[in-house]
Order: sequence, then C-alpha cells, then structure tokens
Amino acid sequence: MKLENNVAHFTSPLYLESGRILEPYKIAYETYGELNEDASNVVLVCHALSGSHHAAGHYEGDKKAGWWDELIGDGKAIDTNKHFVISTNVIGSCFGSTGPMHNNYPSHNLFRLKFPVLTIKDMIKAQKQLLSQLGIHHVKAIIGGSMGGMQALQFAVDYPNFSDKIISLASTYATQPWAIAFNKVAVEAIRRDPRFENGQYDKDAFKENGLDGLAIGRIAGHISYLSPDSMNKKFGRNYVNNDGLFELFGRYEVERYMEYNTDNFSKNFDPLSYLYIVKAINTFNLSRGYDSLYDAIIRIKAETILISFKGDYLFFPREMEHIHTMMQRNKQTSSYYEIDSNYGHDAFLVEIDKFDSIIKETLEN
Amino acid sequence: MKLENNVAHFTSPLYLESGRILEPYKIAYETYGELNEDASNVVLVCHALSGSHHAAGHYEGDKKAGWWDELIGDGKAIDTNKHFVISTNVIGSCFGSTGPMHNNYPSHNLFRLKFPVLTIKDMIKAQKQLLSQLGIHHVKAIIGGSMGGMQALQFAVDYPNFSDKIISLASTYATQPWAIAFNKVAVEAIRRDPRFENGQYDKDAFKENGLDGLAIGRIAGHISYLSPDSMNKKFGRNYVNNDGLFELFGRYEVERYMEYNTDNFSKNFDPLSYLYIVKAINTFNLSRGYDSLYDAIIRIKAETILISFKGDYLFFPREMEHIHTMMQRNKQTSSYYEIDSNYGHDAFLVEIDKFDSIIKETLEN
Repeated sequence: MKLENNVAHFTSPLYLESGRILEPYKIAYETYGELNEDASNVVLVCHALSGSHHAAGHYEGDKKAGWWDELIGDGKAIDTNKHFVISTNVIGSCFGSTGPMHNNYPSHNLFRLKFPVLTIKDMIKAQKQLLSQLGIHHVKAIIGGSMGGMQALQFAVDYPNFSDKIISLASTYATQPWAIAFNKVAVEAIRRDPRFENGQYDKDAFKENGLDGLAIGRIAGHISYLSPDSMNKKFGRNYVNNDGLFELFGRYEVERYMEYNTDNFSKNFDPLSYLYIVKAINTFNLSRGYDSLYDAIIRIKAETILISFKGDYLFFPREMEHIHTMMQRNKQTSSYYEIDSNYGHDAFLVEIDKFDSIIKETLEN
Repeated sequence: MKLENNVAHFTSPLYLESGRILEPYKIAYETYGELNEDASNVVLVCHALSGSHHAAGHYEGDKKAGWWDELIGDGKAIDTNKHFVISTNVIGSCFGSTGPMHNNYPSHNLFRLKFPVLTIKDMIKAQKQLLSQLGIHHVKAIIGGSMGGMQALQFAVDYPNFSDKIISLASTYATQPWAIAFNKVAVEAIRRDPRFENGQYDKDAFKENGLDGLAIGRIAGHISYLSPDSMNKKFGRNYVNNDGLFELFGRYEVERYMEYNTDNFSKNFDPLSYLYIVKAINTFNLSRGYDSLYDAIIRIKAETILISFKGDYLFFPREMEHIHTMMQRNKQTSSYYEIDSNYGHDAFLVEIDKFDSIIKETLEN
C-alpha cells in the first residue's frame, strides 16, 4: 500500500456556518493507493472525535498502525489496490489541520478561545476544498464512524451529487442529549482544571503531564464507548489485585480500563481542540439549514448504507434506523444493518470483522 | 407527624468487614411517628449515596422537605400515624454520623484518608447497633432505594430474622462494572483536583466555592440517574439561549441540568465522604462472605419486595429480577415489580406515585 502524508494550504476564505471566516487554513491528510486515470476510484474516510488523518498503515518506527488499518489496505475491505483512499484531519483538530492552537492570522497570536466555533458542515466544506484542489470533483464513497459517520451523512445532504455512496457507522441524524451529557463531563473537567488557564496554557504545558481535566473527560468518554454487557464480559467484578478490596483506592479491572490511556491521551491531544470538536459533535443536526429533517434527508441521492451496533450506548441503533425509515418512505436507496454486537459504540473501531464484508460489497458492486 | 432528630453515641467497637475497628462512633438519625407499646411498628428507611437521615418533614425555616417526604408522613404510604419510622445517616457520610472528617480517636487528628474502608455490611451493622440501643430488636420493614436498597437486601441476608419485610428499589445484588465506571469519574475528578490536597484540605475549604472535582463527579452521576429517553423528553436539543449555538460555551438545556446543583452539592457534601461511600457502593456484593450468591439469597426469610424501573440505566431491571428469579426457584417469598418509567434511576426519588401503593400495601397487609 502506498501511503502519502501531506498538508494542503488554502488562502481563500472558508465561510463558516457561524458567519465567521477561517482564512488562511490548512488540512493535513493521508492517501493510500493510487488515483486511477478518470479519478473514479476515490474513497474519502472521515475520522471520529479523537482520531486523525492517520487511518491506515505504519510510519517507520511506529508500533501502532492507523485507526482503521484492519479495514483499509491491500486486499482489505477498502482495497487500496482498487481505490484511492483519502483521509483528512478535520479542521479544529490538533494533528496538522488548522485548529485553536494555530496563529490567528494576520496576528502572531494563537487563536485559543478566539478560534471560531466549527460544525460538521464546516468540516466537510473544508474537505471538499481539499478534494477540489486535488482535482477531485466526485467520489465513489464517503465512509466514517461516529463523528466520521456524521460527516458522511452531512456530505450526502449538503452535496447530493458529490458521492455515489455513503457509509455511516455508529452515528445519528442529530446528537441527542444523552451524548451531549457525556461530553459535558469533559467540557467542565477541562474548563475547571486550573492548568487549563482559561485556554491560555503554554503550548507544551501538557507534554510531560497531560491535563487532568482532559483525562477525566476521557474516562467519561470510555463509559459511553462501551456498554454494560461488554463491561460485564470484559471485566466483571474483578480486582486488579486482591488486596484492593479494603483499600480506598484499590481498583477494579474496569477502573483500570477507564484509566487506560487517558493520561497518554491527555499528553497528546490538545484540550482546546477537544472542546471545539466536542462542540461540533454536540451541534450536529442534519436538519439545521433545512426546513426539517425530512427536507434534509430527501436531498440525499447517494446509496446510503447505515450500520449500527446493538450494544451502542452512545448513538443508539434506533437513531440510525430512523434515517433508514425516512429514506425508505421517500423511496430513496438505503440499507440499514444492525450488527449483533455487545461491544458498545467502539465496535466500529474494533469489531471490523463483523461489518467489513458489507463495506467491501458496497464498494465493489 | 412527630419528627425527632438525634445523635446516638457508641463506645463499644464496631468490627468492620475489613478487619479494622471503628471506636467510638456516632450515628445521626431521625424518627417520625411514635413507637407502639410492643415495638412492632418499626420501619427502617435507608438512604442513597448523596442522601442523609433527613428523609421526611421540614425543619423550621427549611424550604425543602426530606428526600422521601412524598412517601413518609401522616396518611402517606409509609404512614407515620401507624408506623414508627427510623432513618439513619450511614457511617462514613457527612451529616452527623462518624466519617473521615471526624477525629481519629484517641488522637485529635481527623481520620481523612486513614478512615477505614466501609462496606454496606458495615453500614447496616452500625444501624443495627443503633436499633439495639433504642430497644428495638425486630422491625416490621426495611426500605430503601439505590444504595438504600442495597442496605435493605444486605439486612435480609445478614440478619434473616430481623425484619418481616424488605423493600428494595432501583438496586442490585452486586454492583456491576457499568456503575463502577460512572463512580470512577468522581473518584478521579476528586483525587486529581489540586484543592483536594490528597485529602489534607481545610475542613471549611469548600464552603464558599465547592470542590470542582466533586461537581464534575456529580455531573457524571446525573447522567447515570437519568436515561436517554428521559433526557430526550425533558430537554431535547434545546438551547438555554438561542445565541448559544455558535458560542463555544453556549449551553444546551441538558448541560444546564447536568450543572444543576452540582456547585451547591460540592459546597455541602464532603469529598472524602463521597469517596468512602462510592467505595462502599462499588464493593457491594451480596455473595461476599457466603459461598455463593445462592448461599446468600437462600438465607433470606423476610418477604422481599423488589421494585425496578424500566428506564433505570444505572442498576438495570434485570439485576433486580435476578434476585427474584433465584428466590422463586428457592420457593422464598418475593415479589418483583418493573415499573413502567423512562425517568431513569432517579425514578425512586421522583416518581413516588408510580410505586407508593405497592409500599402501602406491603406495610399494611
């Protein structure tokens, strides 16, 4: 698989949904495979809250592959021998695309809390600019899970002729209060952390010791990414060590998992980016800008594949099914799959074998 | 209704499940109604994590009544014209009973993190001491919701002849990892708050500005006390003000609710008590000390009423049903009610009218 890593720069303004303008801006992206002659083999992959454009492959010296490496590669469901796959870092994120810790041009100050609020609509508008710059004006498929699935759906609604197919996993038509409530823990934990300094923290402040507020928010996130059943199965009531029972801070296995990687995460992810992306997730609502959800959905021309997971306790299957029901009523082309999984929301990242055949078939038919 | 408020002092040791000893200790409690001549009308009420012994009635100048005032009083389901109701503050809590911010006798230092880990078994053992001191060696019923329901069940298992009836609401036979994970947010948020000072905070430090860590933990708690459906119904995707959409910290209604009372809560509840009580909830497991859950449950002689709520996303109905199924198999006397409510876990506190008739009937038959 041919992996390329690039940053594209844009000097034309990006008009945001808020009425504000982002100018200039840049987008970090990776590509896998090769563009065919008539540019008809493009698959756009969209990442979730904590993801990046590094969706597949390894960099030299890296132990960990991209977050959807099981799905994307030579001979895999998103076959890089056949498809030219593009994965971008969303604007607002902290892995190379313009975000709150970049310069607020023309000043030399960082945006910080002056960064404009972004929405899913803004994120995909920026991605579309990137594709235009690459000479790509139409794609075969757009695919993503969770916030990535929101982007795929928003593409289908806002740019009905842009993609032949849309595959949205573990997502929704509008973020519901239950999900917003989980995000609220992170928002308050970050805001109230004294080291956050109301966004005025030093750029390298958290490299050694991550921001506790972000780690705590991530713990709440971990709950929503699993399910009661998956926790019972994975951890039960086991203790990390048996002496823990009568020690105040003795830990259950599930507690160790909740902590797992949160400290690392909070060293590597920028807290302001986290707040801005969470805001984009919270405000996601396909119907905004249209008269109703019906008016938004009826615009979709792409073949729409909706994949949900039974045990998803963040974006419940009924939310995805609702889109399918509307599309069926409108005689639009949609398929809905409810995958039998108790893993929880994270199934779209870890139980690839349960849905990769659907994706392969969708892309190759 | 005759409301009395007392504190009982004990100089004999309380042998704890951990092997440690609490000595001396005190228990704050309230009573409602009057003890009849043969002491056969006693109902013991047990509180949940954030509750206190103030279960019913008003104190002079108070706007808010006790937490189960709708249920307890003259002519109410727990009729104080008929019953002598006792409600105690659990040991470890911060409303008058011995807890981590009391003196570690004989020293004049506060216990703080040297306070022994307590369990639900310990809490009820202490309550039994109080009842003995009051000359009560048998009660008509023990009733509680959530952690209160754990206490009721633990009484039934540990002291099979002590109570004629047990009513446990919105509870479980053993705390499952899903609930432990929610508690983990509070544990980490408190521990990592610099003002917590590893438990060495000044006693009055949080009276003016509550501890942020506790407020954040409470936000996570609020999620688990509601349900996706109740949030949809109560808040939908409404904004507190319509300008909020493109403001980074603009709030949805659900976010306002999540914050609701958390700051007040964190001024009035002691963070160490919170950690100790959460620990007692996490370690709750009816089978501990017995060979199996079967061996624990088979001990129960009381008529056992189990009430769960369909929309409870903290202690799921199937957990209560599991107890009932076991008791039925053993031909023990149990009834199981799954109340049709989408409110969530907090239904046991707010949807009294959905179950008070069951309680009235149980107590008066």
